[in-house]
Amino acid sequence: MVKRTHHIGFTVKDLERSVRFYQEGLGLELITRIPGPNPYHSEITGYPDTHLSIAFFRLPGSDAPLELIEYVSPAGEPLDMETNRPGNGHFGVVVDDLEATVKRLQEYGGKLQSTGIVSIPTGPNKGAKVVYLRDPDGITVELFEYPTE
Amino acid sequence: MVKRTHHIGFTVKDLERSVRFYQEGLGLELITRIPGPNPYHSEITGYPDTHLSIAFFRLPGSDAPLELIEYVSPAGEPLDMETNRPGNGHFGVVVDDLEATVKRLQEYGGKLQSTGIVSIPTGPNKGAKVVYLRDPDGITVELFEYPTE
Repeated sequence: MVKRTHHIGFTVKDLERSVRFYQEGLGLELITRIPGPNPYHSEITGYPDTHLSIAFFRLPGSDAPLELIEYVSPAGEPLDMETNRPGNGHFGVVVDDLEATVKRLQEYGGKLQSTGIVSIPTGPNKGAKVVYLRDPDGITVELFEYPTE
Repeated sequence: MVKRTHHIGFTVKDLERSVRFYQEGLGLELITRIPGPNPYHSEITGYPDTHLSIAFFRLPGSDAPLELIEYVSPAGEPLDMETNRPGNGHFGVVVDDLEATVKRLQEYGGKLQSTGIVSIPTGPNKGAKVVYLRDPDGITVELFEYPTE
């Protein structure tokens, strides 16, 4: 039985670049940095001699933070980040001003993946605006703006 | 400014297989299924003629649900799921009985990635037990058990 949600996490190529994107660009609060290495990380990941450098960010409205991990060693090759490939992950947040957020994140290396700012015409998110935006590693951040909140 | 966290999501190859793993295996509550296609999904993803089949699951202790998406079209090739590759995503949950959860998930196609059940010796999670376990798509689910909760 699942008791609670602990965190969501992504592997990044350059943790400093990602910290700038999420802290300065998206405005998330940086909770802590763990430079590593911690020997037990090898047991968890299954790689010998693992050195992880980690940053945790608070995700508003959630007890589960965002964890970004740079594998100092063993470093892997970046993935193809097309969202239709099984295994691809993303996460979504609600922002107060979608257009301004997109513009700011583009200054921090973000790339708009959607055809533009999309208005959702049907369903539970009807009336919301949304985009898929890729972070500097190509990780998809789904940004929503609701008219009523 | 981020107001709240909306969801976390993964692309899967076979949504029925994933629903069995997360609903029957991990015990998550299935909130809703959206069989699609929805025309605006092409605008969001940037792919023409996108057909997404989607399932949402409640994540305990979080308002942000887990979204699993099967790209019926355009279908992509499965990714290499080594966790050290930039772009790889994972999520963590706290369970009440880690050993039993690992055993049950292995019956639903899960694979233990850690060297075994790991006891965390230091830091804020000291005393917790943890594993990396791969779901049927190779997506890493990090399972924790705490002695005090």
